[in-house]
Amino acid sequence: MIDPKDNQDTSFIHRTTEAKPPRNISHYLIGRPLSTADAPHQTIGKVIGLAVFASDALSSTAYATQEILGVLSVAGSMAYNYIFPISIAIVALLAIVTISYQQTIYAYPGGGGAYIVARDNLGATPAQIAGAALLIDYILTVAVSISAGAAQIVSAYPFLDPYRIHIGVAAVILIMLLNLRGVKEAGTAIALPTFFFVAVMLITVGTGLFKSLTGTLGVVVNPPEVHVVGTVLAITPFLLMHAFANGTTALTGVEAISNGITAFKEPRSRNAALTLIWMSIILGSLFLGVSHLTAQIQGVYSHDETIVSQLARTVFEGRGSLYLAVIAATTVILIMAANTAFAGFPRLSALAAEDGYLPRQLTFRGSRLVYSNGIVTLAVIASLLIIVFRARVDLLIPLYAIGVFLSFTLSQIGMAKRWWKMGHLKEGEQVIEPGSVLRYDNGWRLKMAVNGFGAVCTAIVMVIFAVTKFREGAWVVLIIIPLLVKIFFTIHHHYKDLASHLSLEKFGGLPARQTRHRVIMPVSSIHQGALEALRYAKLLSDDVTAVHISIDPAETEKVQRKWKTWGEGTRLIILDSPFRLFIEPLLEYIEEIIDNRQPNETITVVVPQFIPSKRWHRTLHMRTAELLRRELLSKPGVVVTDVPYQVYKEQKE
Amino acid sequence: MIDPKDNQDTSFIHRTTEAKPPRNISHYLIGRPLSTADAPHQTIGKVIGLAVFASDALSSTAYATQEILGVLSVAGSMAYNYIFPISIAIVALLAIVTISYQQTIYAYPGGGGAYIVARDNLGATPAQIAGAALLIDYILTVAVSISAGAAQIVSAYPFLDPYRIHIGVAAVILIMLLNLRGVKEAGTAIALPTFFFVAVMLITVGTGLFKSLTGTLGVVVNPPEVHVVGTVLAITPFLLMHAFANGTTALTGVEAISNGITAFKEPRSRNAALTLIWMSIILGSLFLGVSHLTAQIQGVYSHDETIVSQLARTVFEGRGSLYLAVIAATTVILIMAANTAFAGFPRLSALAAEDGYLPRQLTFRGSRLVYSNGIVTLAVIASLLIIVFRARVDLLIPLYAIGVFLSFTLSQIGMAKRWWKMGHLKEGEQVIEPGSVLRYDNGWRLKMAVNGFGAVCTAIVMVIFAVTKFREGAWVVLIIIPLLVKIFFTIHHHYKDLASHLSLEKFGGLPARQTRHRVIMPVSSIHQGALEALRYAKLLSDDVTAVHISIDPAETEKVQRKWKTWGEGTRLIILDSPFRLFIEPLLEYIEEIIDNRQPNETITVVVPQFIPSKRWHRTLHMRTAELLRRELLSKPGVVVTDVPYQVYKEQKE
Repeated sequence: MIDPKDNQDTSFIHRTTEAKPPRNISHYLIGRPLSTADAPHQTIGKVIGLAVFASDALSSTAYATQEILGVLSVAGSMAYNYIFPISIAIVALLAIVTISYQQTIYAYPGGGGAYIVARDNLGATPAQIAGAALLIDYILTVAVSISAGAAQIVSAYPFLDPYRIHIGVAAVILIMLLNLRGVKEAGTAIALPTFFFVAVMLITVGTGLFKSLTGTLGVVVNPPEVHVVGTVLAITPFLLMHAFANGTTALTGVEAISNGITAFKEPRSRNAALTLIWMSIILGSLFLGVSHLTAQIQGVYSHDETIVSQLARTVFEGRGSLYLAVIAATTVILIMAANTAFAGFPRLSALAAEDGYLPRQLTFRGSRLVYSNGIVTLAVIASLLIIVFRARVDLLIPLYAIGVFLSFTLSQIGMAKRWWKMGHLKEGEQVIEPGSVLRYDNGWRLKMAVNGFGAVCTAIVMVIFAVTKFREGAWVVLIIIPLLVKIFFTIHHHYKDLASHLSLEKFGGLPARQTRHRVIMPVSSIHQGALEALRYAKLLSDDVTAVHISIDPAETEKVQRKWKTWGEGTRLIILDSPFRLFIEPLLEYIEEIIDNRQPNETITVVVPQFIPSKRWHRTLHMRTAELLRRELLSKPGVVVTDVPYQVYKEQKE
Repeated sequence: MIDPKDNQDTSFIHRTTEAKPPRNISHYLIGRPLSTADAPHQTIGKVIGLAVFASDALSSTAYATQEILGVLSVAGSMAYNYIFPISIAIVALLAIVTISYQQTIYAYPGGGGAYIVARDNLGATPAQIAGAALLIDYILTVAVSISAGAAQIVSAYPFLDPYRIHIGVAAVILIMLLNLRGVKEAGTAIALPTFFFVAVMLITVGTGLFKSLTGTLGVVVNPPEVHVVGTVLAITPFLLMHAFANGTTALTGVEAISNGITAFKEPRSRNAALTLIWMSIILGSLFLGVSHLTAQIQGVYSHDETIVSQLARTVFEGRGSLYLAVIAATTVILIMAANTAFAGFPRLSALAAEDGYLPRQLTFRGSRLVYSNGIVTLAVIASLLIIVFRARVDLLIPLYAIGVFLSFTLSQIGMAKRWWKMGHLKEGEQVIEPGSVLRYDNGWRLKMAVNGFGAVCTAIVMVIFAVTKFREGAWVVLIIIPLLVKIFFTIHHHYKDLASHLSLEKFGGLPARQTRHRVIMPVSSIHQGALEALRYAKLLSDDVTAVHISIDPAETEKVQRKWKTWGEGTRLIILDSPFRLFIEPLLEYIEEIIDNRQPNETITVVVPQFIPSKRWHRTLHMRTAELLRRELLSKPGVVVTDVPYQVYKEQKE
C-alpha cells in the first residue's frame, strides 16, 4: 500500500498548445475556429430582443389560422362563423400564458425554461418529461416551420411543387451551417426580417380591415382546390375543440424569451418581461386580424396555396409587389422560426447532458464555440421528419404543440410550487436553488394562483389536444415522450453508477503494487514484425512466452526452425489446433494463465501487427489484436497491446 | 546487435488444445465440427465419377436447345430447319474439346484445370485470366442452373411463377448449407439423380424418336405464349452464329472431370479419361435427340414453359407421371449442376489464394474442413445475380459460357506449349513443374496439333460468342475479366511486397537493443481507472509522464488537486487547449516527444479505458485509445496501449 500523502514532489508543467483544428472545408462553410477566450458576451435591448426571440411565435400567424380552417372546412361555409370566436379563445389563452410567464421571468433571471423550473421545483422526473417534450417540440418546430416556409414558396411559384422536400431539406442544411458558424443572437441581421414581417403583415391586415369596413374587400379569386378531410358534417363540439387545438399552435415559441433572459441588457428580467408582453400583443393582433379576414374573403383550405397567400392576393388584388413582399417575409420568418429551435435544442440538450441525462458529447462545443453535436443532431432528425412527412404541414401539426403545452403545464406547476415554498419560508430566510433564489414573498398566494390558473388552462388544452388529435398522430408523441424519459434515466443511471465506481472518495488506494509482469505473445509466423514485437515484449518483462497455434504442420515446422535462430531463447509454446481454430485456443491458453496467476501479477498480451501502407490492404489480413482485445476486455489485470510494424517505412531510427 | 546463433537454449513446448468451435446453430445446419485428421480421402470409380462430375455438363441439355430456339424463333417456323444442323456443329465442337481434354487428363494426373495448365505453361497473366474467367463462370453456372431449375418447376406448376426468385435463392442457400456441411463427392446419394436424369431423358428421347419414326408424334398441344426477340426476319449468317453461340452453353461443365482427376480410383487418368468420353457421348446424344425432337413437335420459345416440358408432355401425351418424372429429374440435375460449381469455385479460389492472388482468408477451412469462405462468397454473389436478373435464364445466358471458352482456349494453348517444350527436351531429361512432370514424348507433334486445333476451335467460338452477344451482355464479362485480373495482381503485389519486407532472409537483426522506455499517459480526469492505468504505466517504466488536456479550467484544477494526492509523484503536463480540441494537442505533444527521442528509446502511450458492463454504454464515452492508435499507427517505435478498467467487476485479486 502506498500512502498517497507521501507524494509531495509531484511536478506540474503547464503550457498552452498551438493545436488548432485542421484547415479544411468546414473553414469555408462555418468560418475560422474560435478560441474559448473568444466567447461572445453581448446583451441586447428590448427592440432587438423582440426581433430575435419573437420570430418563432410570430411566425405561427402564418399557419395557425389555416390549421383551424383545415378542421372546420368539413362544415363548408359554416366554418367562417367559427374561425374568429376560436381565435379569440386562443388569444385569451395567450394572455393567460403571458401573464403566467411574466412571473417566471422575474423569478429566474438566469433563464427560466420549463426544464430548469421543473427540475428545481418538481424533481428529476418532471424535469426530464419537460426536457423530452421540449426537445421533441424543437425538432417539430424546425420541421413544421420549414415545411410551412416551403409551402409559401410553392404558393407563389406553383411550378416548384415537386421540389417541396428538396427546398425544405436545403433550408435545414443552410440553417444548420449558419448555426454551426454561430450566428450571434444580437445580430441586427436577424432582427430585420422579423420587423419586415411584422410591418408587411400589419400593412396587409390593416389594408384588409380598411377595405372590409369600406366594403371593397372581395373574396378569393380563382381559389385553389379545396382539400377537405372527410365528408361535410355538422359543427360538433368535438370539431370545435379540434379546431381550437389546431389553432393553439399559435402559442408555440412563446416560451423562447423566458429561456433567453440572460441575453437581455440589465435590468434583464424587466426588459425580458416587457418584450414578452409586446410580443404577445403583436402576435395576438396579427392572429386575430388574419382569422377575421380569412372568414371575410372566404379563404379555403388547400395544399396548393396557403391562407396567407390567398389573403395577400385578395387584399392587394393580385400578385403584385406587395403580395410578393408578404410571401417573402412569411417565408423568411418561418425559416427564422426554425432558427430559434436551433438555438434552443442544442442548449437544452447540453443542459441535460451536463446533468447526466444525455450523452456527454452534447456538452462539447465545436470550433465555433457552439454545441455542434446538438445542432447536427437536430438538423438530421428534422430533415428526416420533413422527408418522411413529405414536407406537409397538415401531417406534422398533430404531433406538434402537445409537447409545448406539456412543458407549459409543468413549468407553471413548478412555479406554483415555488410560490408555495416561498410562502412557507420565514422572513429573511433564503434558499438558494441551482436556478434561482427563494425568499419570502408577501404576494405568494396571488402569484401561486396566477401560475396555478395558467397550469390548469394549459393542462386542459393539452388534454383537448391529445384527445382530438390522438388518432391523427398525437399518440406518437404520447409514446415517444415516456420512452425518451426512460432513455434519459437509463443514461443518467449509467453515468452515476460509473462515477461512484470510479470515485476516489473513500477509496483506500489500489491493492499491493504489481511486481510481476508476464508477457504472452502469439506468433503465427516469424518475420521482422514478429521480431519487433518480441523486442518490445522483452522490454516490458523478462518473462515472455511466445505462443504459436499450429494449424498446418509444415508452417509450424518453419516457425520452430526460425524461432531457434531468432527467438533469443524465448520460450515458445506450440498449441495444436485440430479444429483449425485460431483465436479460441489462444484465448483458452491465456485464460489458463490468468486463472493461475499470482495476486501481484499483471499479464500483457503483445500482438505483432503489421501496418500496410494502404487501408484496403487490411482486409487481406487477420485482425488478431482487435479480436483478442474484445474477448479479453472483461478480464482485470490483462492488457492487450498491438505492436505496430510499419512495413513500408523508409528507415527506422 | 545480438548474434542469433548464441541462442541455443530455446525451449519448445508442444501440446494439443481442446478448443472446439462453440456449439451453436451451425451445428444443426452443417453438422458437428470435424478435426483436421478427419479429412476424408476416398476415391471413386468410373460409374460414380460419371454421375458426380457429369451433372453440370449433362444438365445443359435442359436449356441448350431452348437457347438456340430463342435466337432462331425470330425466323418463325423456318427455325426448325436449322436447329438440328446447329446442334450437330455443337456436338462436333464437343468431340474436339473432349479429345483435346483427353490429353490434359493424362498429362496432369494431379488435376489439370485451366488455371494450373495456364500457370505452368503460359505464365502468371494467362493463369490469372483463366482463373478470373473460371470464377465468373462458376458463379454463372450457379445462377443459370438454379434459374433454369426454377423455370422447370414453374413449367410444371405455373402458379409458382411469382416465386421464381424465391425458389432460386432458397435453392442456393440449400446447396450452400450442403456444401458447408461438406457433402462427400463419392456419395452415391449424389450419383442417383444423375442416373435418374439420364434414364428419364433417354426414355423421353427414345419414345419421341420411336413415335416420330412411326408417325405418331404430334405437335405441342396448347403451346405457351411465344416470346420472340425482335420482328420476324430472314435467316442471316449472324443469326445462325448467334444461335450456335447460344447452343455452346451445352459445353459448360465439360472441364469438371479434368479438375477432379484426383478423386478417381487408380489408374486415375485412365478412369477419368474414359469417364469424360462416356459423358460426352451421353451429352451429345441427348442434346441431338432433344434438338431433333424440338423441331418435330414444333416446340416454341417461351418464358412460361421450357422446351423440356413441352417435349415431355408431347411425347407422353399429357402431364402424367412420366412427364412429372422428367420435370423432377431435370430440376434436380440443374440444382446438382450448381453443386458442381460449389465444388469448383472454393477450390479454385483457395488455389489462387495460396498462390497469393486472392485474400488468404479463402484458404481457411471451416469447421467441416471445406473452404467455407469461398462457399459463402459464391452463394452470396450467385444469389445477387439471381435477384438482379429476376431468375431469367435468357438474360443470364449472354454472360455465360464466354468464360468457359476463354479458359478452354487458354488451357489448350497451354497444353500445346507443353508438348512443344517436351518435344525440345532430350531423351531421359525430366523437368518437374508444380502440376506435372515433363519428359520427352515421341508423339509430341501430333499431340500439339490436337490441342492446338482444339484451342483454335474454342477461340473461334469465343470470338463468335463475344461478337454475337456483345450487346446482350457479353460486354459485361469482357470488362469484368480484365478488372478481376488487375485486382488479382494488385493483391499479389501486396502479399509479395509484404513478404519481402518482412523476410528474415538477408536480415541482419534489429538495430541495437532498446533500453529506454518512455511512457506517456493522457488523463482527462483522475479516477480509479486512471490510477489503474498509472500503476500499469509504472510497471512498464520509471519514466512516466501524465498529460492532461485542459479545456475547462475548473476541471483542470480538480485534476491537479487530485493528482497531488494520487499521482505518486508522477510528472503531470497540463496542455491548455484554447480551441477545445482534445486529440490534436495530445498528438502534437506525443509527436514532439517522438521527434526528440533517442535512438534506443521506445515510447508507449498508456490510455486508461473503462469497460462498461453493457456494450451500448460505450457510445456515451470517448474512444481516445482507438483514435490515438489510428493516428499513431504510422510512427515506428510507438505503441498505444489501452489499460482496461472493469468498472463493474466483483473483486479484483
